[in-house]
Amino acid sequence: MASQKCLVQGCQAPGPVTNSQIRIYSMRFCPFAERTRLVLNAKGINYEVINIHLKNKPSWFFEKNPAGTVPVLETVQGQLICESPITCEYLDEMFQDKKLFPADPFKKAQQKMLLEEFSKVVPFFYKIPIGKSKGEDTSAEEEELKGKFIKLNEVLVGRKTKFFGGDSLTMIDYLMWPWFERVDGYGVARLLDAAPALKEWMKRMVEDPTVKATMFDGETHKAFLKSFFDGKPNYDLGL
Amino acid sequence: MASQKCLVQGCQAPGPVTNSQIRIYSMRFCPFAERTRLVLNAKGINYEVINIHLKNKPSWFFEKNPAGTVPVLETVQGQLICESPITCEYLDEMFQDKKLFPADPFKKAQQKMLLEEFSKVVPFFYKIPIGKSKGEDTSAEEEELKGKFIKLNEVLVGRKTKFFGGDSLTMIDYLMWPWFERVDGYGVARLLDAAPALKEWMKRMVEDPTVKATMFDGETHKAFLKSFFDGKPNYDLGL
Repeated sequence: MASQKCLVQGCQAPGPVTNSQIRIYSMRFCPFAERTRLVLNAKGINYEVINIHLKNKPSWFFEKNPAGTVPVLETVQGQLICESPITCEYLDEMFQDKKLFPADPFKKAQQKMLLEEFSKVVPFFYKIPIGKSKGEDTSAEEEELKGKFIKLNEVLVGRKTKFFGGDSLTMIDYLMWPWFERVDGYGVARLLDAAPALKEWMKRMVEDPTVKATMFDGETHKAFLKSFFDGKPNYDLGL
Repeated sequence: MASQKCLVQGCQAPGPVTNSQIRIYSMRFCPFAERTRLVLNAKGINYEVINIHLKNKPSWFFEKNPAGTVPVLETVQGQLICESPITCEYLDEMFQDKKLFPADPFKKAQQKMLLEEFSKVVPFFYKIPIGKSKGEDTSAEEEELKGKFIKLNEVLVGRKTKFFGGDSLTMIDYLMWPWFERVDGYGVARLLDAAPALKEWMKRMVEDPTVKATMFDGETHKAFLKSFFDGKPNYDLGL
């Protein structure tokens, strides 16, 4: 198995994808890229990973994605797909085994509406630890994130289901999970105290074999975040 | 045919959808809602329109969409769908006649990536007329929008196709069109001078029967925008 160590400026560009079904350009601690890796793992796709040093990117990486962000998928035909929700839906449509989005157009639309809502929650996961690292008062942001957790809790309570798309784990759960995996590491876990159904959902999520095989523990996320705030993100932490 | 005049605070809520295949809550000059109306028209769906006074919304409208924005779709079963790209994809999946998204997952992903790019262009269509209405210097924003038009022009030139998804009109064209319909009314048309392929695309778009049946002319958009800047948006203009 090839090294997962991240590629930096000056590293040679990889050739075409020949030894797997698809390639992902990733960063091991990026929650957006984790969405795509969760879907790749859940669907049992045979894929290869190329990790990118996001602070010192190889110049050829901008040919893969002009925005320079991960995740990026590269197919055997050399097609390139970026933006995490687009990569996940592409994989779900291209690889028919274990469909993750519901077939019903309304249920699928419901998942996308919830994702849209959730995309407004994501910035708060960063504002709080960033503010704290600067010694700022983050109580307003914490109140706001707490309120958003309560709203997500209400969605679960209202639907009376174990997961956000029903009683089994589907796409929307994987799309939201990476940020919940980080609540301990990012120091926002106690904001979940008023959201018991959401906490139950998290317990179910960590039991999922795909989540287990993809996730890092809170200590690792914390250590990565510290290296990030210190200005020297350790993208190869644990390798 | 029912009046299209917009409903305000105090108006009675409409009952369930019984006389058509689907209902759209809209505003006649909203470009986001126009996306959905373009798709409804292109696919020949039998729909009813309820226009909402966006500055004085009926309180029941927040039960249709807590965010209070249009478009919202309401089905015969009472299901509610909001966010314009989600409504358009829902319609395309639910009503199989005349599919607008390509069946190929990569080509579909390409359209969604371009839509994501385009969503960063949309704010400039507003910044410029708003800035001008306040007597501000908008030359920096104009340069930026001009650059974005040039990039979209390069996409068309690179693909060597008549429309953004190939030689026939598909979903991505309808999703981007409403803002191009407004370039005259919003006073940004001359920024297209360095984007001749994009101007050719616009000429093809106005020839499309669906666009013809859905669009307003530049003078109407200009008059609506003026009423909006005057603090009294005339949502019923022309009725």
